[in-house]
Amino acid sequence: MDYDAILIGAGAGGYLSAVRLLKHKKKVLIIEKDKFAGECTNYGCIPSKALIEMSESIHYLETMPGINMSYKVDMKEWQKWKDSMIARIRNGAENLCKSLGAKIIYGTGKIVDKNHVSVNNETFSTDYIIIDTGSSPVKIKGIDDVYYNREILAIDNIPEKLVIIGGGYIGIEMATAFKKLGSDVYVIEMKDKILPEVEEDLSKAVDKKLRSLNVNIILNSKVLSVKKDKKYKVSIENHDDITADVVLMSVGRIPNTEDLGLENLNLALDGRFIKTDNHKRTSVDNIFAIGDVSGAPMLAHKAFYDGYIAAENILGNDVVVDYKAMPFVVYTDPEISFTGRATENSNKIPVLANPRSLTMNQTDGFFKVYYEKDGTVAGAGVAAPKSSELMGEITLAIEAGLSLEDIFLTIHPHPTVSEGLKDVSDIND
Amino acid sequence: MDYDAILIGAGAGGYLSAVRLLKHKKKVLIIEKDKFAGECTNYGCIPSKALIEMSESIHYLETMPGINMSYKVDMKEWQKWKDSMIARIRNGAENLCKSLGAKIIYGTGKIVDKNHVSVNNETFSTDYIIIDTGSSPVKIKGIDDVYYNREILAIDNIPEKLVIIGGGYIGIEMATAFKKLGSDVYVIEMKDKILPEVEEDLSKAVDKKLRSLNVNIILNSKVLSVKKDKKYKVSIENHDDITADVVLMSVGRIPNTEDLGLENLNLALDGRFIKTDNHKRTSVDNIFAIGDVSGAPMLAHKAFYDGYIAAENILGNDVVVDYKAMPFVVYTDPEISFTGRATENSNKIPVLANPRSLTMNQTDGFFKVYYEKDGTVAGAGVAAPKSSELMGEITLAIEAGLSLEDIFLTIHPHPTVSEGLKDVSDIND
Repeated sequence: MDYDAILIGAGAGGYLSAVRLLKHKKKVLIIEKDKFAGECTNYGCIPSKALIEMSESIHYLETMPGINMSYKVDMKEWQKWKDSMIARIRNGAENLCKSLGAKIIYGTGKIVDKNHVSVNNETFSTDYIIIDTGSSPVKIKGIDDVYYNREILAIDNIPEKLVIIGGGYIGIEMATAFKKLGSDVYVIEMKDKILPEVEEDLSKAVDKKLRSLNVNIILNSKVLSVKKDKKYKVSIENHDDITADVVLMSVGRIPNTEDLGLENLNLALDGRFIKTDNHKRTSVDNIFAIGDVSGAPMLAHKAFYDGYIAAENILGNDVVVDYKAMPFVVYTDPEISFTGRATENSNKIPVLANPRSLTMNQTDGFFKVYYEKDGTVAGAGVAAPKSSELMGEITLAIEAGLSLEDIFLTIHPHPTVSEGLKDVSDIND
Repeated sequence: MDYDAILIGAGAGGYLSAVRLLKHKKKVLIIEKDKFAGECTNYGCIPSKALIEMSESIHYLETMPGINMSYKVDMKEWQKWKDSMIARIRNGAENLCKSLGAKIIYGTGKIVDKNHVSVNNETFSTDYIIIDTGSSPVKIKGIDDVYYNREILAIDNIPEKLVIIGGGYIGIEMATAFKKLGSDVYVIEMKDKILPEVEEDLSKAVDKKLRSLNVNIILNSKVLSVKKDKKYKVSIENHDDITADVVLMSVGRIPNTEDLGLENLNLALDGRFIKTDNHKRTSVDNIFAIGDVSGAPMLAHKAFYDGYIAAENILGNDVVVDYKAMPFVVYTDPEISFTGRATENSNKIPVLANPRSLTMNQTDGFFKVYYEKDGTVAGAGVAAPKSSELMGEITLAIEAGLSLEDIFLTIHPHPTVSEGLKDVSDIND
């Protein structure tokens, strides 16, 4: 065989699985048709977090008593910085793989049979194949020439008027960021609430804040058409038309399974996803699939974890996936995070009881924990500044079977947002 | 007896011990001579974090490519906001105690004998006494009329030129904040490095950043005199005099044991501190001492913990202190945090390997873990944005006897700073 493993798609999970195999002296070919390190690094979570960080700082200073601020954002300059920041991450990942001996080919990898993959008219034999081709935005026929995640994050000026179709986490993160950067923002959602993927109290905290920022949230509404002339004209069922400078379409993502040669294999699918077992193995036993293409939730950290599981199994270690504590974050205002699962027993305290949040001029949100009858931690939902940074602690507690008392008796530094986890864990007094 | 317990000093640890006793139906008198909720809330960590947060946002936007910002800080306006923010915390604490039935008297509490405390010419009998009188800044004879933590945090304009005597954590936090707010800052430290209380690589990360910001750090130097006319003139051994608009003295803190009636008891001291055993009990068996007055480290979260221990013991539960994982944070740039203890086995990765830090335009710092030979987590030192929020996870892992592999296999949301803890815990590949 030419290779021990061929990775199709150098996404964040994929390249980490390659690193693991390479460190164990496996011969690995990585095939990537676009940019190394995948959608999240190049076009998704990394640039969006950079944009959100900037918008949050601006909003914080604009609303802080005693500060008189004026600012201009030169998005072209900012994009240069953003691109160089991302290049640093991307090149770091690529150079790490190279330094460990990976062969990297840019092109479209196509599975010929279970032991052969072709790219750029060459065919290579391999013991294992890992598919990590990711996902793409859902596009709606007849609605063309709109913005998706890639385009909105590469934008070179702040739109005066922005219409966002779809109130899921991508849409709502962008709504928050662009509103804080000065855009007039409309969110159109078919369901009766924004962020339908999270618990009601978390989504409500964000809904309340967005409305106080004068974001226009249009629920229970369907977009009928989007026409582009000099500006966009968005027609909505039972609503006046809206003209806009930019229309962002964020109505979900679909797995990338085309052009992959799946027709040459008898690979089982699960809906549009490639079906995998709890070893991340597909129905063809030497082929693994990880990340977005292998099923929801479509999250980079789920892809990392999948990549680790696939690599371990290729290395001969019988490791299985356990998604029981999978954190989920929406980088909004307040930042909302969830991990684990809901149970009948919960405790909740307001952000107003957390001094560190108050020092950041943040007064909205809460800390909530779910627990089993015996006090074992089951899950948590937090709407608070930088709540994403608290998910490691709770997720670790769930994985290790620890109790709320373990968290309560752990000394948390003062003042931190993390003290909220300690305080909400005090259920026995 | 008039009371089950009398608390002298409603510091952050003290009032929490009162809350615990009150929730168990104990009759509690709280005596406070200044403001409820203590030094940290009113004059220390809370206002300083608010100031630091503002200075960090300003600096981040000033140095972010693509942002053109001008700003003015009206410190009088900001102080009003700060005071109202603190009042919210303070009133919340006081109202909680009142709602649980505490009697609160403002005045100087004095111990008459082991079962009697007087205040404002009244004397009350009690079963237990908790001393939580805190600490005050060290003042040097002959150097008068300078600023200490209270004065610098109540300042109503940004000084043009600020001299800070003492390069410990208070001095260095203020040096960073005021430099970012535009002051010309000098730090004078007697030792050969700043932040002598933390590990060398942590203090070096801060030293490097401060120097790149053009903070003037004068090491191995002793202040000979500080004279005040229109401006201050600071004379330093082997150094030119420095004139300054404000001089901040931050050369340590001493426990508040005066005016407390200690002369009426045969209470054992440990240096200047009140000596306590591992139940936070003093040498007089119904008198407890907690927080700064009972020994180093002088940290609010150590006081909370002490307060919990004292209350539990008064409630008849034999709970002992265990400081094995005591987090410590300095809110500088980078923010540095430490918990647990150093061992011979460690792993370290740079902040450059943490994508979330890069999205915040932060490239300096590192993640370091210490572990036992068998992989059990022993400690961590982190120099990274918001590193304080990561200490809960590591401290919990230490307390629960978890291993680095437990942390590595826990799914951390992407992108977060907390992923650095996961990545640095990968020691087995």
